[in-house]
Amino acid sequence: MADKDALVKEVTPRSEDFSRWYTDVIRRAELADYSPVKGSMVIRPYGYAIWELMQQALDRRIKDTGHVNAYFPLFIPESLLKKEAAHVEGFAPEVAWVTHGGQEQLEERLVVRPTSEAIIGTMYAKWIQSWRDLPVLINQWANVVRWEKVTRLFMRTTEFLWQEGHTVHETEEEAQEETLKMLEVYRDFAETELAMPVLKGLKTESEKFAGAVSTYSIEALMGDGRALQAGTSHNLGQNFAKVFEITFQGRDKTVQYGWQTSWGVSTRLVGGVIMTHGDDSGLILPPRIAPYQVVMVPIPRGDWRETVLPHAERIKGELEARGIRVMLDDREEHSPGWKYAEWEMRGVPLRLEIGPRDVKNEQVMLVRRDNREKTPTPMAGIAEHVEGLLETIQQALFDRAVAFRDEHTQHTTDRAEFDKTLEGRPGYVVAPWCGSDDCEAKIKTATQATIRNLPLDPKPSTGTCIECGKPGEVDAYFAKSY
Amino acid sequence: MADKDALVKEVTPRSEDFSRWYTDVIRRAELADYSPVKGSMVIRPYGYAIWELMQQALDRRIKDTGHVNAYFPLFIPESLLKKEAAHVEGFAPEVAWVTHGGQEQLEERLVVRPTSEAIIGTMYAKWIQSWRDLPVLINQWANVVRWEKVTRLFMRTTEFLWQEGHTVHETEEEAQEETLKMLEVYRDFAETELAMPVLKGLKTESEKFAGAVSTYSIEALMGDGRALQAGTSHNLGQNFAKVFEITFQGRDKTVQYGWQTSWGVSTRLVGGVIMTHGDDSGLILPPRIAPYQVVMVPIPRGDWRETVLPHAERIKGELEARGIRVMLDDREEHSPGWKYAEWEMRGVPLRLEIGPRDVKNEQVMLVRRDNREKTPTPMAGIAEHVEGLLETIQQALFDRAVAFRDEHTQHTTDRAEFDKTLEGRPGYVVAPWCGSDDCEAKIKTATQATIRNLPLDPKPSTGTCIECGKPGEVDAYFAKSY
Repeated sequence: MADKDALVKEVTPRSEDFSRWYTDVIRRAELADYSPVKGSMVIRPYGYAIWELMQQALDRRIKDTGHVNAYFPLFIPESLLKKEAAHVEGFAPEVAWVTHGGQEQLEERLVVRPTSEAIIGTMYAKWIQSWRDLPVLINQWANVVRWEKVTRLFMRTTEFLWQEGHTVHETEEEAQEETLKMLEVYRDFAETELAMPVLKGLKTESEKFAGAVSTYSIEALMGDGRALQAGTSHNLGQNFAKVFEITFQGRDKTVQYGWQTSWGVSTRLVGGVIMTHGDDSGLILPPRIAPYQVVMVPIPRGDWRETVLPHAERIKGELEARGIRVMLDDREEHSPGWKYAEWEMRGVPLRLEIGPRDVKNEQVMLVRRDNREKTPTPMAGIAEHVEGLLETIQQALFDRAVAFRDEHTQHTTDRAEFDKTLEGRPGYVVAPWCGSDDCEAKIKTATQATIRNLPLDPKPSTGTCIECGKPGEVDAYFAKSY
Repeated sequence: MADKDALVKEVTPRSEDFSRWYTDVIRRAELADYSPVKGSMVIRPYGYAIWELMQQALDRRIKDTGHVNAYFPLFIPESLLKKEAAHVEGFAPEVAWVTHGGQEQLEERLVVRPTSEAIIGTMYAKWIQSWRDLPVLINQWANVVRWEKVTRLFMRTTEFLWQEGHTVHETEEEAQEETLKMLEVYRDFAETELAMPVLKGLKTESEKFAGAVSTYSIEALMGDGRALQAGTSHNLGQNFAKVFEITFQGRDKTVQYGWQTSWGVSTRLVGGVIMTHGDDSGLILPPRIAPYQVVMVPIPRGDWRETVLPHAERIKGELEARGIRVMLDDREEHSPGWKYAEWEMRGVPLRLEIGPRDVKNEQVMLVRRDNREKTPTPMAGIAEHVEGLLETIQQALFDRAVAFRDEHTQHTTDRAEFDKTLEGRPGYVVAPWCGSDDCEAKIKTATQATIRNLPLDPKPSTGTCIECGKPGEVDAYFAKSY
């Protein structure tokens, strides 16, 4: 863009204002933009390429665990949404309503799906007859709409993209097993692909999905010490099966209700990646989801188009032959320094500089985005070396995020310390909790912190409830969150 | 499904009622289903798997020609849609209107996108400043909504899935080149992947896209002799650029309007594949887009689980190692005969039968879905043989469709023959046309046939206009269409 030079310089330092830094980076790196529709964003090609890489990595895992994709309607008749009482109560305040089609007013209003339990449950009731039809293991990639008052690019927008899995099982045990299996798929995906360490755990009653028996989540810690709910997996029990009449003839010939789960992650993960890894110079992308893993910048000295460029192109070919995604930036109108800053802003994990002297010495300069380490590296065997280095960077980003989380996780049994920690130094504060909604709500009012989740295999609590002083049921993870 | 046996027997013969056959096949093969939302369909996993394979093949071509993917909002403010006069006139009668968000009435109504020229044009105006920003070559995969009164699974539904490319160029010539390039991409995709021969051509004025300068299409001939518009590519000229203010500073420093194109294909292609290749036994899928390319049916005689199944599993592994998609149907509750009919209904290109005698003779039986040819084939080298056979089947389906089209294309300069042909024996009728909208409209009223498109490199017309008798401008392709 013509005004890019000016724009890049405008990014607010991360330490100064994390929230503005976040928005600046997204706009300067051209990940996304505001749209003329209030609360809706445009995902620009560079941001969408990150999402596509995420989709591929997650879709593979979803299919490897036996699921298939399908597509259900965008619109849900009002009467269907209303069938499950808790569900409609949770979602009705935040849906978009379609009232007219063409020139005519509709007999029944339609909701633009905020999630698809209602429409999918209706179809499952039609498709499932016998225990032989189970399990049904279906996922869909789709857009959903939730009417948000306060929005934030990628994190909270009126429309967003996600996948939602919806399964039906023969027994309660199988549904619970599926719920935890997909939670583990999400953990593995987040940690392996996004280099984003997460806590797996159980949501409290007050934070669970509208209509679920129980909700599990993966929670990640962002660079400003706030937690992000990065994915959820719900055990729906028979709640939806009963209202949508999802029944089957069991092995014993009796008619039974199906046991269901649903689970999803969304484009908010792109926001999570930015806030986990980025720095004052912009984005830092984990190599596995970087649209370009290597940017090559030739140094334009002398007759570089004849002397340097052919070597650059050969190396590019060698890298691509190994499946590495490469951008060779040979534009004449920008200086190398401008290009360094530009591709740092865009978070490319590795820069490869090559000039006339490098060619003479049969080497290139490699510069890591994560720690800025510069290493002259022989041209011979460069592709194999780069491949290994990208893995190293992926691991280093993960390790750094784990260290950050550990530094920002504090255990306490003392209320004064609890309050002080949540004021001065954000992150997780792990503290005993008695299990009551009431205490949870009071803590939220006092500190703005909520229980992110409860450990999956809880150990005995270490003390008395941080709010009421009754015996602690479990040590809960408190944090301020997005 | 429990009632599948009953259902499969119910498919209406293709020759008896093509339209009912089409719907029966879709439902029995579980490609799609009606939904509780009027005019909207559910794409079931088997149908969606076909769409995913189509997407992959087309997405690769879209990216190989330099385009990138992005995502734009589902909703379009009414005022934006109204900016281009022809565009709003074409689409306003068939859009869904969102009037309420949450509990509140919106200040401005939103349209659920029927196509995205308006919202994308608005963003392009913001992003493009200089000729250096051009060309912009963006595609999106998305759902769109058009309020249809009469619907038909895959062919015409209120909501459908598609891709829409939207490009901006520096010159009129480049935009025209892009328009024809993408038309050729569609032709290659349809013929290579779907084995569906198409005619590339120019739409007449009355059939062009609302807001375009010119529309090109690929047209395919269905098994009942009706034509299907299978993809379109539009040269938008500066029509949208002028109303959305998409300007750039040119090489000569003057401010100019961009030149645009847009192009799309949709899930209606799944319908096209069904109607191009299917027969009385159900679907016939071209191997390249078949979710399962080979179905293996072990013959359950004697201790077949010990004697036959291990061989079947070994062969499955050999096939999969070559990237062939295989279903090994070892269910005990169904007979081989039932399985043959079931997988024929689902259109699997090749069946591999293996029983105790085959194992003894170190062979298997291969049965082609397209021509039912049965060939005993040695186990040794089976994977390589199957790979070749799948290519043969792909080509055979294409050749058969070409032959069908040629048989159903008739040239005439005589009006009586023209009318009679369109009555008794459907297909294309190629006849001289003077170029007037009026003649085109009269022919449509009289025969129900429309001009599908005009040849890209028109030869001189062979006679006088089939309607008015004035000199023919071009020989046009007339047909009844979907």
